[in-house]
Amino acid sequence: MAQASKSAVVLLSGGLDSATVLAIARSAGYACYALSFAYGQRHGVELGAAEQVARALGAVKHKTLTLDLSAIGGSALTDPRIDVPEHPTVGIPATYVPARNTVFLAVALGWAEVLGAQEIFIGVNAVDYSGYPDCRPEFIAGFERLANIATRAGVEGREFSIHAPLIQLSKADIIRRGTALGVNYALTVSCYQADESGRACGRCDSCRLRLAGFRDAGIPDPTRYR
Amino acid sequence: MAQASKSAVVLLSGGLDSATVLAIARSAGYACYALSFAYGQRHGVELGAAEQVARALGAVKHKTLTLDLSAIGGSALTDPRIDVPEHPTVGIPATYVPARNTVFLAVALGWAEVLGAQEIFIGVNAVDYSGYPDCRPEFIAGFERLANIATRAGVEGREFSIHAPLIQLSKADIIRRGTALGVNYALTVSCYQADESGRACGRCDSCRLRLAGFRDAGIPDPTRYR
Repeated sequence: MAQASKSAVVLLSGGLDSATVLAIARSAGYACYALSFAYGQRHGVELGAAEQVARALGAVKHKTLTLDLSAIGGSALTDPRIDVPEHPTVGIPATYVPARNTVFLAVALGWAEVLGAQEIFIGVNAVDYSGYPDCRPEFIAGFERLANIATRAGVEGREFSIHAPLIQLSKADIIRRGTALGVNYALTVSCYQADESGRACGRCDSCRLRLAGFRDAGIPDPTRYR
Repeated sequence: MAQASKSAVVLLSGGLDSATVLAIARSAGYACYALSFAYGQRHGVELGAAEQVARALGAVKHKTLTLDLSAIGGSALTDPRIDVPEHPTVGIPATYVPARNTVFLAVALGWAEVLGAQEIFIGVNAVDYSGYPDCRPEFIAGFERLANIATRAGVEGREFSIHAPLIQLSKADIIRRGTALGVNYALTVSCYQADESGRACGRCDSCRLRLAGFRDAGIPDPTRYR
């Protein structure tokens, strides 16, 4: 199990945060199995970005699973009838996708168990974030507890760890960290409503956080805006 | 919210247990939203059975989501190269699908949040079961705790309950209960390797538990065997 215990599943969206997480996991010596989801998001550009990021950062394998969360709707990201907010909102914004990180971590857990991996990485962030309940430290800790009850591996004592290395970093710190690790952020797409060629709107929550992050880090922003 | 609070999401596989759970939720007065998964299982017959069961028992809506867990494999139910065991095995059998109930409950949680429903029903059973870790009471309790951390509804105090009404019943008790509630078990398919017309093998774990259940309940078994 020596080799298997150095494998990790890394959730990869094609955005800035998860690309940084993949670089962190690689730099820690893990053989990384990157996992993306075609979940009915507004655009598929980020899945192309995830593919490029996985290759650039040397993931052993990259899988994109289809799970159409637009069938249940309820979010600006999965229901075209709900607008993406372009101004700061109070409370949890319309881009919240109900139970998304629970679903993604659950599938990552399944893949990790099949691989014999005990480490799962996710790029959630509780500082410069959008107020999503499933980006908080208590959610990550809760999922880790569940993982070790839910699986054969957990029951047999091969415990899982859920790593969220960005959770207490500012967006600027994330960008500094990734830049030091050689992440090419030009490959990543953060915008909630990027166009078909991957150009960002510059106005949605995700664009505003990213813009401010590069500015605060004092690092040139490679994002292509339309 | 009076009406919405009486809605429930019910996981429905097309098998005997989940059909009984749907009947229990209906008899308790819930408007039931039934959820099934095309997850790469060995046969699609059970999804047709789920559709019929949902209609027969008066679900408000029935959705079947596609999530191809065969992409991660690791189970006799999702990898055709792994045989379905036809004799009792020691420990957790090859039909265990890593993290399956975690994934299914996560999606059910997302749909429940969109619907404004706070009740989720699942047909797991810890008595006449196959030793799956995600069929135990501690798993259900753990998922309920997570649900209330993971979601906007939970954070805002509209707490979720995960109901597993069969968890301490024997298979015979389940069959007695469902029969009393008018479940037509002829519509259900339990066999792990049913043929295209829904006829059961009579030899796999699931068939053996079902056979013994009807026998112990003293109720005629409507299963069609090949």
